[in-house]
Amino acid sequence: MKIDLTINPALARTILSGFIRSELRRAGFERAVVGLSGGLDSAVSCALAAEALGAPNVLALRLPYRTSAPDSLEDARLVAEKLGVHMQTLEITGMVEPLLDQDPGISNVRRGNIMARARMIVLYDHSESWKGLVIGTSNKTEILLGYTTIWGDMAAAINPLGDLYKTQLRQLAGVLDLPPSILQKPPSADLWIGQTDEAEMGLKYEEVDRLLYLLVDQRFTPDECVDAGFERPYIDGVLKRIRRNHFKRLMPPIAKLGNRTIGYDFLYFRDWGT
Amino acid sequence: MKIDLTINPALARTILSGFIRSELRRAGFERAVVGLSGGLDSAVSCALAAEALGAPNVLALRLPYRTSAPDSLEDARLVAEKLGVHMQTLEITGMVEPLLDQDPGISNVRRGNIMARARMIVLYDHSESWKGLVIGTSNKTEILLGYTTIWGDMAAAINPLGDLYKTQLRQLAGVLDLPPSILQKPPSADLWIGQTDEAEMGLKYEEVDRLLYLLVDQRFTPDECVDAGFERPYIDGVLKRIRRNHFKRLMPPIAKLGNRTIGYDFLYFRDWGT
Repeated sequence: MKIDLTINPALARTILSGFIRSELRRAGFERAVVGLSGGLDSAVSCALAAEALGAPNVLALRLPYRTSAPDSLEDARLVAEKLGVHMQTLEITGMVEPLLDQDPGISNVRRGNIMARARMIVLYDHSESWKGLVIGTSNKTEILLGYTTIWGDMAAAINPLGDLYKTQLRQLAGVLDLPPSILQKPPSADLWIGQTDEAEMGLKYEEVDRLLYLLVDQRFTPDECVDAGFERPYIDGVLKRIRRNHFKRLMPPIAKLGNRTIGYDFLYFRDWGT
Repeated sequence: MKIDLTINPALARTILSGFIRSELRRAGFERAVVGLSGGLDSAVSCALAAEALGAPNVLALRLPYRTSAPDSLEDARLVAEKLGVHMQTLEITGMVEPLLDQDPGISNVRRGNIMARARMIVLYDHSESWKGLVIGTSNKTEILLGYTTIWGDMAAAINPLGDLYKTQLRQLAGVLDLPPSILQKPPSADLWIGQTDEAEMGLKYEEVDRLLYLLVDQRFTPDECVDAGFERPYIDGVLKRIRRNHFKRLMPPIAKLGNRTIGYDFLYFRDWGT
């Protein structure tokens, strides 16, 4: 069975830069702040923001940790220069080491979460000081699989990429004005030398995106996914990841006591205040 | 007109400790982590968690900054001791000063947000290492008025207090086993000496809670609130605050491109994965 994740990248580009422009303007903003990691996703977010608002209205922040790859930092610089956006660099090492140093046996998961959240702090501080909204960089694959940090890289004012699978993001990136090095490198959270998303998750984007598309977009049952050529344990593993990480996609539940409770029966659209 | 915010505190106590117990257990947890500021709200969350799970299953974290009032630290200790929960203390000064020091003219709003988010990082790191869920401490008054930091004190796994106005929280606190000093002190974010919520917001909890109750719980129109005895500019100011801060109560919007988009038509309850 043919599973086709081809998008129209020119159309996606128009829709997503329009989304950024309209969401920002109706919130009363003209500027955007993006964390540039040197990877593909944040480069795409930054390019879309520059297209939506004009490059001078975009602030790209490089937020390396002591062990971040120098290549990542250099790639981020290439992206910012090519797009013509403002760039600032602020090392998070000083912010995170007091906490990391408390526990010499700290796991990589904890280290990664602490760094993702420290970056959120710096992005949001610049959001306030530079009067720009934080543009998210999480794609649909990682949000569904939970390969993200809640209140960290998941935290943004708006997210233009959350409905694009990683393999679709690559198609979009191909029509944007980005340095070639960005398009070719293997996806990595850059927490240690040689880390890649695919090795860490034990999943290949090309394969898992096709399964996610069937399960989520096409509402296939697991049996139908078996018929489409996927192995049952693989399907079960992916389904478990999607479900187990659902909490990252929701605000914390509030215990209901009163007549109208925030999140249950006190519900408005996000632009209610504008 | 009589506006009555009286609650049945014994009933609220039972409902809220039951909420904590059932939400944690169905997520597969038996332990809770609470940030104890020395104020009333976090003391109430901590007491409810201790009642729900047993005191040995609750970790109270004191997370002072260099300028936090010594009284707050001491009050937090009194709460933890009276409840019999575990207590740890970790100063956030070292984490936040590298960022604060970047800008000597940094505003109090930015300082407050940075500190609230640094505390979130420490709470969530202990959530992972201690295998307990973070219990929120935001009340209905501050969530509605936006007197909170998004991805900071608003960030929690569950929130037992979010449907209680501040004046109702005080009634609940009265039936819990808390030190008297906690019950009597004026509410404060403790960012500088002498700070109080009421002076900073320019609102009195006793008054604004009554208005919020009419607007939110009773669905009064502004005209009906005037008839109930409130001044028009006061009503308009409160309504503006509620609306302007609505973004803090929602996840970031994702640009829709595909068939099923997270947050729009890919919707499940939080306990989907359990």
